[in-house]
Amino acid sequence: MQPRIIKIRKKILEKNDHLAQQLRGRFERHRVFVANFVSSPGSGKTELLARTLAALNVDYRPAAVVGDLATENDAKRLASSGAPTKQILTGTMCHLEADMVQNAIGEWDLDALDFLLIENVGNLVCPSNWDLGEDLRVLLLSTTEGEDKPLKYPTLVNTADVVIISKLDLAGVVEFDLALAKRNVLKIRPGIDVLSLSAKTGEGVAAWLDYLTQRFKQKYTTQPN
Amino acid sequence: MQPRIIKIRKKILEKNDHLAQQLRGRFERHRVFVANFVSSPGSGKTELLARTLAALNVDYRPAAVVGDLATENDAKRLASSGAPTKQILTGTMCHLEADMVQNAIGEWDLDALDFLLIENVGNLVCPSNWDLGEDLRVLLLSTTEGEDKPLKYPTLVNTADVVIISKLDLAGVVEFDLALAKRNVLKIRPGIDVLSLSAKTGEGVAAWLDYLTQRFKQKYTTQPN
Repeated sequence: MQPRIIKIRKKILEKNDHLAQQLRGRFERHRVFVANFVSSPGSGKTELLARTLAALNVDYRPAAVVGDLATENDAKRLASSGAPTKQILTGTMCHLEADMVQNAIGEWDLDALDFLLIENVGNLVCPSNWDLGEDLRVLLLSTTEGEDKPLKYPTLVNTADVVIISKLDLAGVVEFDLALAKRNVLKIRPGIDVLSLSAKTGEGVAAWLDYLTQRFKQKYTTQPN
Repeated sequence: MQPRIIKIRKKILEKNDHLAQQLRGRFERHRVFVANFVSSPGSGKTELLARTLAALNVDYRPAAVVGDLATENDAKRLASSGAPTKQILTGTMCHLEADMVQNAIGEWDLDALDFLLIENVGNLVCPSNWDLGEDLRVLLLSTTEGEDKPLKYPTLVNTADVVIISKLDLAGVVEFDLALAKRNVLKIRPGIDVLSLSAKTGEGVAAWLDYLTQRFKQKYTTQPN
């Protein structure tokens, strides 16, 4: 890349980092736990978010923000959970940025929320450098994508906090080697948490919900408001 | 996006367009038909390229160039076809550019080739603006990604010459609606050719090979060297 574009990009990223830090502070003051879901297109983010919102809705107050280049389909699909949902349309951009999230949550009363789930644009590269002020970056890798993706797309794996291997119900039919996939994730990020589930059948979803709510409790129940 | 970065990006794209046009002229002088394969990660590009190379090898002289952020896995996999194969490592970049292709084919005798198949980085957004001097931009959409992807990622669909719906063998298990997917492609790009196949079972592959070789013949057999 050309030095000039690197310099300008660096400035834009610094501006995003600064805003993301402000957002993070704001979320903490209002005791909102924020998860940013990243993955390839079609790896099951929306399905998992729909399940997660519905389950969280019982004991918590979740909301969702969804990024896509075009269409409001995902927001409509998630809104059926009853949780507040907002669609961000990015046009030709392959990732979300902190100011888009800030604008999307603009009118919401954060004191009325416990969780904000952000579905990023489906992209296994672009979201890497863009902090959205999240507590947890959740990387989905679908069994249908193959076991080698962590090795071929290490950049996003390197910025993730937890990896979820999704579409476990298809593992058999696509001859997916779960142990190999986990080893490949751990080669890039030794020690990272790796979960596996099927949002369709529900297998592994309870463990994921437990993981997510534990993270919330660790952050907010030990620390009085 | 900021005006300064748009201006610089425009310059870089113009430079790429210029080089891509030079490459296109060079390919034409040597009568090499070039196809650029774009798709999400894990939609089956490498599997289809492996099949295509092996089949073309009988009557033609194909070669392949493969882009990935990291690993030489794909080039190794394709080299088993016996066709010349070169891996491009892009580091953190989410697409191939014309100069990368130029460098990759640097030492090859183009007179000894009929086809050059370029496997782009797995990304449903980034490769859109980057002309590689190809004759045919082939967009793969996997059945496992869902029918809505053409609507959600219109940018890349808009630059494609042909769409291949891949992993047709999984259509049943993921309850993929092929007719709906085709309608969604045609909503974005009325009249575009849409093929469907399974590189695993071979279903639809003969029609794809026929399509590809017809395109080669249309371009090169009517026009004497």
